[in-house]
Amino acid sequence: MKIGIVGLGLIGSSIARSVVSKEEISSVVAIDTNTSSLEAAASEKVIDKGGTDLSLLEDVDLVILALPVKTALKIAPEVVKHMKNGSILTDTGSTKVSLVRLIQPLWPRYVGSHPLAGKESSGYLSGESAILRDAICVITPTPSTDKACIETVKMFWRLCGANTVLMSPSSHDAIMAVTSHLPHLLSFGYMHIIENSVVPRSLIGKGLKDFTRIAASDPRVWKDIFFDNKDNIIPLINEYIKELEKLRSYINVGKTEAIEELLRQYSKIRRTLDEG
Amino acid sequence: MKIGIVGLGLIGSSIARSVVSKEEISSVVAIDTNTSSLEAAASEKVIDKGGTDLSLLEDVDLVILALPVKTALKIAPEVVKHMKNGSILTDTGSTKVSLVRLIQPLWPRYVGSHPLAGKESSGYLSGESAILRDAICVITPTPSTDKACIETVKMFWRLCGANTVLMSPSSHDAIMAVTSHLPHLLSFGYMHIIENSVVPRSLIGKGLKDFTRIAASDPRVWKDIFFDNKDNIIPLINEYIKELEKLRSYINVGKTEAIEELLRQYSKIRRTLDEG
Repeated sequence: MKIGIVGLGLIGSSIARSVVSKEEISSVVAIDTNTSSLEAAASEKVIDKGGTDLSLLEDVDLVILALPVKTALKIAPEVVKHMKNGSILTDTGSTKVSLVRLIQPLWPRYVGSHPLAGKESSGYLSGESAILRDAICVITPTPSTDKACIETVKMFWRLCGANTVLMSPSSHDAIMAVTSHLPHLLSFGYMHIIENSVVPRSLIGKGLKDFTRIAASDPRVWKDIFFDNKDNIIPLINEYIKELEKLRSYINVGKTEAIEELLRQYSKIRRTLDEG
Repeated sequence: MKIGIVGLGLIGSSIARSVVSKEEISSVVAIDTNTSSLEAAASEKVIDKGGTDLSLLEDVDLVILALPVKTALKIAPEVVKHMKNGSILTDTGSTKVSLVRLIQPLWPRYVGSHPLAGKESSGYLSGESAILRDAICVITPTPSTDKACIETVKMFWRLCGANTVLMSPSSHDAIMAVTSHLPHLLSFGYMHIIENSVVPRSLIGKGLKDFTRIAASDPRVWKDIFFDNKDNIIPLINEYIKELEKLRSYINVGKTEAIEELLRQYSKIRRTLDEG
């Protein structure tokens, strides 16, 4: 199978590194606007061929859009024009409803994917096959998606070392808002507090560093996610503000027992998260 | 020097483990209401003597209150009644203004301390000397604190393996509200969001786990901190809610450039936190 990766950033280059030497993959083609990434990838033999022109996708069997959501939405109509009959399209976007809604009518052999993998640094040089190994990749077919296409996409992610889970696009977006999107927004927002305080860096410990680690994530990627999934994220922001207002009022009026009871319940819930 | 530790939980037992074999420490006495912790500590030779009665502190040179803030405030007046003339008192409380205000008039040879060390589990069995090694211990004297007492307390924490920093009690409480107290409150509060969502545990990744790791912390300890330092914490909650409202409004009305600019600035600030 010949694959084509559009976008050789953190995720795209991690995919290339994961599959380039697999015998199931006969060739890895990459498209990027950044020619120095393409040159580095070619010289490191992470890809077989690279270029800036989508016509390179013409004899590819599986195309993977590895781009921020908004860029993927914008480029998808162009990409499908260069794909051969019978080839399959997937992507790695962190939100799925809008991508599936746009791409499925354009290319029925499209299956949405979202590998739950990443780190705070971005770009070609940050990619590594390790981030996909044992990661979970959510695949988001719809009732009309061709079963054979789903199987090919599942097989592809397994080749990358990931485990796959199937879910509807809307379930995916609702769950990710809770497990990833809102935590990122809250962590980014905490930097406003840090910015307004005089805090000696030497007094910043592991607690705060872990709490805010995801605030170092790629601004372009996250801006797209916040806008694209705002229907799920905004109600959660409202719910979280309400919770903070409740905690503030309990602290303010001295409801010590109510706070202790809540903290006890919350620390218990947190412990269950490690059981997954 | 003979030391007495009041409270043989996570911090108290970590202190005992750190100093019991040091030649500068001739004896470690511990007071706790939990006799099984005392028995375990005695049999493991983590302490030389233990009991439930404060009279054990009568020939001790340095007493360390290793208790949640409210318990320390409650027991301090009793503890000083059993201390010999010339002995020194310190504590490990996570807030300092109220402790210093109460204890300094009762025992002028008191110096507040706060070792920035901990983990999410609590109790005697969780203690380990490693959490104090290379930790920072903030010492909070006032202008009237005896210099020799400060030196003894500094020396003691260095024996535990920690590095010391001097700061006023009010600076300490203001800084900790930003670096520790508010992050804990926000992380605890996030459990309300988790609780109200149907989230498969298998889809919870490192991002959310790190963001909420501190929500597993000891409810009794944190309840006391939130109430005791509410004058610093409540204005920060207000500021944080305002920030979330701003982000929500930007997302809602589609201010994509403003959001990207903020995220860029925030991710840059986050990167500076690792430089400390």
